Amino acid sequence: MMDTAFNTDPIEGLEVGYDIPAKPGMAESEIQTPCLLVDLDALERNIVRMGEHLARTGMRLRAHGKMHKSVDVAKLQIAMGGAVGVCCQKVAEAEAFVRGGISDVLVSNQVRGAQRLDRLARLPQRGATVSVCVDDVANVAELSEAAVRNGTTLGCLVEIDCGSGRCGVATPEAAVEIAKAVDAAPGLTFEGIQSYQGRMQHFATHAERVAAFAKSEAMTRAVADALTAAGLAPRLVSGGGTGSYMLESASDVYNELQCGSYAFMDVSYGRILDEAGHRLDAGTWENALFVFTSVMSHPVADRAVCDAGLKALAMDSGLPTVFGRTDVEYAVASDEHGVIKDPSNALKVGDQLRLVPGHCDPTCNLYDHYVAVRDGRVEALWPVSARGKLY
Amino acid sequence: MMDTAFNTDPIEGLEVGYDIPAKPGMAESEIQTPCLLVDLDALERNIVRMGEHLARTGMRLRAHGKMHKSVDVAKLQIAMGGAVGVCCQKVAEAEAFVRGGISDVLVSNQVRGAQRLDRLARLPQRGATVSVCVDDVANVAELSEAAVRNGTTLGCLVEIDCGSGRCGVATPEAAVEIAKAVDAAPGLTFEGIQSYQGRMQHFATHAERVAAFAKSEAMTRAVADALTAAGLAPRLVSGGGTGSYMLESASDVYNELQCGSYAFMDVSYGRILDEAGHRLDAGTWENALFVFTSVMSHPVADRAVCDAGLKALAMDSGLPTVFGRTDVEYAVASDEHGVIKDPSNALKVGDQLRLVPGHCDPTCNLYDHYVAVRDGRVEALWPVSARGKLY
Repeated sequence: MMDTAFNTDPIEGLEVGYDIPAKPGMAESEIQTPCLLVDLDALERNIVRMGEHLARTGMRLRAHGKMHKSVDVAKLQIAMGGAVGVCCQKVAEAEAFVRGGISDVLVSNQVRGAQRLDRLARLPQRGATVSVCVDDVANVAELSEAAVRNGTTLGCLVEIDCGSGRCGVATPEAAVEIAKAVDAAPGLTFEGIQSYQGRMQHFATHAERVAAFAKSEAMTRAVADALTAAGLAPRLVSGGGTGSYMLESASDVYNELQCGSYAFMDVSYGRILDEAGHRLDAGTWENALFVFTSVMSHPVADRAVCDAGLKALAMDSGLPTVFGRTDVEYAVASDEHGVIKDPSNALKVGDQLRLVPGHCDPTCNLYDHYVAVRDGRVEALWPVSARGKLY
Repeated sequence: MMDTAFNTDPIEGLEVGYDIPAKPGMAESEIQTPCLLVDLDALERNIVRMGEHLARTGMRLRAHGKMHKSVDVAKLQIAMGGAVGVCCQKVAEAEAFVRGGISDVLVSNQVRGAQRLDRLARLPQRGATVSVCVDDVANVAELSEAAVRNGTTLGCLVEIDCGSGRCGVATPEAAVEIAKAVDAAPGLTFEGIQSYQGRMQHFATHAERVAAFAKSEAMTRAVADALTAAGLAPRLVSGGGTGSYMLESASDVYNELQCGSYAFMDVSYGRILDEAGHRLDAGTWENALFVFTSVMSHPVADRAVCDAGLKALAMDSGLPTVFGRTDVEYAVASDEHGVIKDPSNALKVGDQLRLVPGHCDPTCNLYDHYVAVRDGRVEALWPVSARGKLY
């Protein structure tokens, strides 16, 4: 067990109920709802379990900080779970992590625009190792100029489209062209390949993920081979999320994972099936993140209404489930309300429930704080350090 | 034109790109994306147009502050558009509005739990008129005790379920029982009826809304008649949103509207049809709110990727549209990316686009600031005063 009772931001002067949902030492029953609740025991077990996977397979983990946006969780992942650092998607997220003391940060995304490029290039001045993804040769010159202007060095990974249909180059030739430009550019170092297939992470069955991964791996191998043939062997081949990391780990192409959701879990990842046909939230990863909510109205016998709606739960991946309950069901969300089917009239006004969010990443981004609990008590209040850091 | 160049929070010391997306005086091209953009001319026209409707019909408007969560927008609605004050859904929102100087605030929702009740009951100490909804007779005693304990008075509206299937009592008898309890309780005044039918707001055709409204109105009239017969004639009968306000205004049952989205508009309200079959965003209400985004990658000829995804746009009511463009289409959202179909290869990296969000309320809640623009310049930066005020 780690000492988690530290906070990256002071909470003096903050008012419970207006600014923050709880203070350390409070009982769970005193926590103001709705809020993000972290089960510290479950979180730590998830982090340790991933560390064991890394030790077994020799893979590196660059934990995805876009999920939790928390300096405190990132520090736990590094200290307890062997993570080498974090990745994130926005320069402002990277700024939050570097300001919070994380010393190795990858922006696993394109950075364009003069101000943003300068902000990225200034980050190594704070002592951090900073890298970024590139999928356009024109971006190489921009990054180089920014690094030179600020007297720093930026690592670059060539991003390839290995099946997501989003960013990333489509051919080994284009990847080699960019890598050569990076290698020749002052202020930049060529680090390797960004090969993250986001779409396959949520395919329901193992067989579907295996099939998608085969294409992703073949593309990644072709790029790695072409780079090696050009004298630019990739030091890092980074990719893999909570849905696919077993596949990247078993392959000889990748050496770094970018898992994020394993630490908290959500309904969407929970329902995908592993090779043995078991749900991912049944034994592999525990639900460590909840939206804590209270029943605020029970107008008719079979309908309760709780205080967590669309502004408390991201709904892009569907409705939340009620943790540990089979007798009640979160059925309808409106902006500030959740209608709960309560056929046996089991709930009372004031009852607190743990909701497992449909999608953890955008749900965490709705809140300013995590309430970290253990044994029924608030042990720490962690800021969502990079909440709203969109730029 | 109002003087909108005021801010309820200071912005000195805040860093563009990390803390805020822009500063007053900047050109639109300098704004960091993604961010919330408000077209001040369109916003002011919407606000004035609603004021004209109020003058014509004699209705009151209690503008729904849960939508914009902005003290500045609320002040414009009061000053330019004849609003009597705001309503909101959470005590912490009410605190933000009262602290910001709004003097008449209704929490159009149930307030339960000891801390929350005390926070609500303390608000009139700051000079504001504060009211709240009740749908449970047990809640009346709690509210009364909190008001007495804090030496204040709270107005109470009995909430009825007029068709939404959420909170609210189901019968006139239950409404009368609560009203009598309120009337007899120290520290409380009985104000009237909360009759908001949320579900019908988004019914696509005028005929569907008329049919749903007929049931809602019949229930509301029955409650008002029963209250009057019991010697508790309601001073206020409040309800109506942007989808239905013409119906409440034409009825003799209601005297107060709670419209919110009319000020900003979104895709979801835009596509509903008025009595003449015209979309609501074609002439009645203008799109005044946008998520401003930049193209950050254009990896293949027909696909651009922008920097606004699930964390920049609430997706519960569907994808955003690209304002003023028919040649490109926002097609797929992931956490930090939007994939844009660009069949004619019209977009370039760095291009800025205005997205109309699917649902304005939860989208506004993702951001700390509004960038208010006029004639291509940033005129004001407004805090989203009650963002994340969930408790």
